[in-house]
Amino acid sequence: MSFSAVTPLLQTLSTSDEVTLMSTTTWTRRHIISLADFTNEEYDTVLRTAASFREVLSRRTKKVPTLQGQVVANLFFEPSTRTRSSFELAAKRLSADTLNFTPGSSSLTKGETILDTAKTYLAMGTDLMVIRHREAGVPQAIATEMDRLDSNVGVLNAGDGQHEHPSQALLDLFTICSALDPDYPSFSLLKGKKVAIVGDILHSRVARSNIWSLTASGAEVHLAGPPTLLPKLFEQYTASRDRPSSSLIPHPSPGKLFLHWDLNPALEDADFVMTLRLQKERMTQNLLPSLREYHQQFGITSDRLKLCKPNVKVLHPGPTNRGVEISSELMDDPKISLIPQQVTSGVAVRMALLYLMGSGKA
Amino acid sequence: MSFSAVTPLLQTLSTSDEVTLMSTTTWTRRHIISLADFTNEEYDTVLRTAASFREVLSRRTKKVPTLQGQVVANLFFEPSTRTRSSFELAAKRLSADTLNFTPGSSSLTKGETILDTAKTYLAMGTDLMVIRHREAGVPQAIATEMDRLDSNVGVLNAGDGQHEHPSQALLDLFTICSALDPDYPSFSLLKGKKVAIVGDILHSRVARSNIWSLTASGAEVHLAGPPTLLPKLFEQYTASRDRPSSSLIPHPSPGKLFLHWDLNPALEDADFVMTLRLQKERMTQNLLPSLREYHQQFGITSDRLKLCKPNVKVLHPGPTNRGVEISSELMDDPKISLIPQQVTSGVAVRMALLYLMGSGKA
Amino acid sequence: MSFSAVTPLLQTLSTSDEVTLMSTTTWTRRHIISLADFTNEEYDTVLRTAASFREVLSRRTKKVPTLQGQVVANLFFEPSTRTRSSFELAAKRLSADTLNFTPGSSSLTKGETILDTAKTYLAMGTDLMVIRHREAGVPQAIATEMDRLDSNVGVLNAGDGQHEHPSQALLDLFTICSALDPDYPSFSLLKGKKVAIVGDILHSRVARSNIWSLTASGAEVHLAGPPTLLPKLFEQYTASRDRPSSSLIPHPSPGKLFLHWDLNPALEDADFVMTLRLQKERMTQNLLPSLREYHQQFGITSDRLKLCKPNVKVLHPGPTNRGVEISSELMDDPKISLIPQQVTSGVAVRMALLYLMGSGKA
Repeated sequence: MSFSAVTPLLQTLSTSDEVTLMSTTTWTRRHIISLADFTNEEYDTVLRTAASFREVLSRRTKKVPTLQGQVVANLFFEPSTRTRSSFELAAKRLSADTLNFTPGSSSLTKGETILDTAKTYLAMGTDLMVIRHREAGVPQAIATEMDRLDSNVGVLNAGDGQHEHPSQALLDLFTICSALDPDYPSFSLLKGKKVAIVGDILHSRVARSNIWSLTASGAEVHLAGPPTLLPKLFEQYTASRDRPSSSLIPHPSPGKLFLHWDLNPALEDADFVMTLRLQKERMTQNLLPSLREYHQQFGITSDRLKLCKPNVKVLHPGPTNRGVEISSELMDDPKISLIPQQVTSGVAVRMALLYLMGSGKA
Repeated sequence: MSFSAVTPLLQTLSTSDEVTLMSTTTWTRRHIISLADFTNEEYDTVLRTAASFREVLSRRTKKVPTLQGQVVANLFFEPSTRTRSSFELAAKRLSADTLNFTPGSSSLTKGETILDTAKTYLAMGTDLMVIRHREAGVPQAIATEMDRLDSNVGVLNAGDGQHEHPSQALLDLFTICSALDPDYPSFSLLKGKKVAIVGDILHSRVARSNIWSLTASGAEVHLAGPPTLLPKLFEQYTASRDRPSSSLIPHPSPGKLFLHWDLNPALEDADFVMTLRLQKERMTQNLLPSLREYHQQFGITSDRLKLCKPNVKVLHPGPTNRGVEISSELMDDPKISLIPQQVTSGVAVRMALLYLMGSGKA
Repeated sequence: MSFSAVTPLLQTLSTSDEVTLMSTTTWTRRHIISLADFTNEEYDTVLRTAASFREVLSRRTKKVPTLQGQVVANLFFEPSTRTRSSFELAAKRLSADTLNFTPGSSSLTKGETILDTAKTYLAMGTDLMVIRHREAGVPQAIATEMDRLDSNVGVLNAGDGQHEHPSQALLDLFTICSALDPDYPSFSLLKGKKVAIVGDILHSRVARSNIWSLTASGAEVHLAGPPTLLPKLFEQYTASRDRPSSSLIPHPSPGKLFLHWDLNPALEDADFVMTLRLQKERMTQNLLPSLREYHQQFGITSDRLKLCKPNVKVLHPGPTNRGVEISSELMDDPKISLIPQQVTSGVAVRMALLYLMGSGKA
């Protein structure tokens, strides 16, 4: 039990609002860049801490003083509403001060390098940096620079190119585990479940992060998409399971990842279906014949879900194109769609991540 | 006396800063979309609550903890500085956390529907949504969806197309009543007063909301503008007074609305003159010959005001085009212009609205 | 000793976080527009107050309740990331509420004048305005209007055209004095030191503000740049020292400013070298042959610094063009570059300025 990490959370805004944190481990990871080397213990700590914050969010005063006086800088070099608002709200509910970097009015247009921008925010006194960038690797490069400078700033990857989007995969995980057991959403619940990830896998950092967390949990992960959006190179993820020596942390469930160029085998007996956003520019890139044909082949509809388990749930990272990757009717069906829960989970999971990263510095 | 509504306001930031709220009624309206069905009691509650907050704003620490831990999302699909800053400041002075949605960097450009954007902010945990949109009806559509989803989110229309802008009309009302009696700005003070609304009535949501509140108060409302900007269809507002059966809540003062295509009869013996912003694109739309001619016919000047009551006051919702709809000299005359008071009232009235909407959920 | 100014700072966020403010003078300046008439006592008060806030920033909870309930409006008519974030963070660490004005979505595009925009923020209840504008003189014009209206709003110039950028020069001063004596960064330490300012002096408001503060301190200030970027008119600054009658407050060190069209004499035995950002549009304006040639003639490199004192330090207001005005290697050398310290000082100095301006109104 790490008391140093727990104490700040107990200093609540008023004496009547107390939080009991379930965390019983010490968090040691300073940066959250990728889920490739996350341990099962880390996944469980995130899930349990997020469950505590979900309890905070059910109160009238949805706020704790945990990060009071600390600064969270949202450096979104690629514009975003949804993810930035979610992180901003998570930071405010931890009583942190937030700084928003907007690329339009930025020093970047004046020739400054990205690392120099990050170093400026470091020198101003930023404690945690949440970074989104069009190019894969930028958050890692900033984290490496922060460590080289002996700062104790934590860097959180909020989406980098087609690489990873770990906080999205962790909120998906929390949503799925909460659907399986609302009170104790633990990592082990996913063992043996079948999860289908459908759509534009090639361009999706969300899919890449989910592949790590879901396969680590012991779930069977089935990827489905047209060959242009799900190329054979994804077999390397499967193959790598057979070569644990190439990975620092061997994955617990080798051979649990499957590829399909057809939707039906992915959906058969699935417990969860995660459909991805289809960017309309894929058509002009000649990767798709038409949105209509895409919907016919890979769009998720009530009819298609009959192939799945009776209690199947559908997820989508948003924003959605209704009638393209998912039918409008399905999106609005509260018995099947977990989409609102994903957004709600997002705030709790991001509070947990900022809290765990921030408390490591106490 | 609604104690549940009053109590949160009494939990002040420090023991020496206490607020005595004059409200003696229970507020039941969840959304503020239009003033068409506002009751006299509601107008009076808003005025008295705003007067309490004006007192808070006269202190050195202009802040109360009323909405601490609640989230106010400013969803301004149409850009705005003045109104958004006013709402943001009102929310911050109630100790709420604020989220600003900026359409430029938004999911909308990624194909998401407006209702889905609103539902995302709902799922994040937003308590109150302040919505501006280029299209009439959007705030109502979002409010309907929020109710359908059984959320207890309150929606406030901050301007929708050419439909309504209720918080502007309520701050105008508060400004006018405060000019009549600074200590007790009550709704009944307006009975029998003459108010002229001058300019581009056709395109003005401000005028439409003011027509409801001012005629309900028992004031005589005189609309003046060129026929292209004040078409005959506005007579329906007058006519509707003669058919109370078509309205759920019959208005107390039928026949108090008058139309003029000439300025002078509107100004004669007026107690208040409300001039509206003239958007310069009206000329390219062939609705006006020239700004100069418009100013000569409908621009408000000291000279023209000689037709009014000796103590006449001038209002303008801002931003102003000096020398077009109002002379520069008049705008800067503190004995006649209530324009700065309107802006100041705006913060107090918006604190009152957010407070009343928010406390209904306690 | 001004107790009224000190007391608010002592009301700390929690009883265990106390601040001992070293200030022993009463601050009387309401607006900070230019350093041309700053007194030595004022420079010293800023330095000592900033040192107190630097101590606050070294704590875990980097926040004091000094300006709680006050509103700081950042009116950046010219876009900026670095300076706006620095002021925003300074305001938040004093517990002020902040409003950000963004010109893109503003009333300005609707024809409102800048003074009317400022008056709107005044009427909303703004206490302090931080103003940046492309045109010299705008902050002064707004300050004059605020005084004419008998408001007690303080206006701080955050950069106006090619005129001044006083908070930047004050943070440069604090950085330099702290390098000379970290514990007691007093103004008198600079007496007799040699400071070189290198680059595009003509277009630099940073250089202009620094000329005032550095010459007032008794330092020898050497300007160096190509004739197109350092025209003869700068000799007026030198000349004005010989005509103290033209200045309300005679400068203590006449004749301490020197001009060079060659880098070497400016660097010889310099204690500090301040290099300025070269805007790339200077080339298209035919003021420079090429960036490469500029770097060869005026770029600061380790090799060039051999002409200076052994402990020479380099400053840059940022954002930098690595390899143009300064070599990349030098910028990253923690033994020579004071660039990160400038950014850190910026927050402490801006907290000091907002505190001094704000407390004068207590």
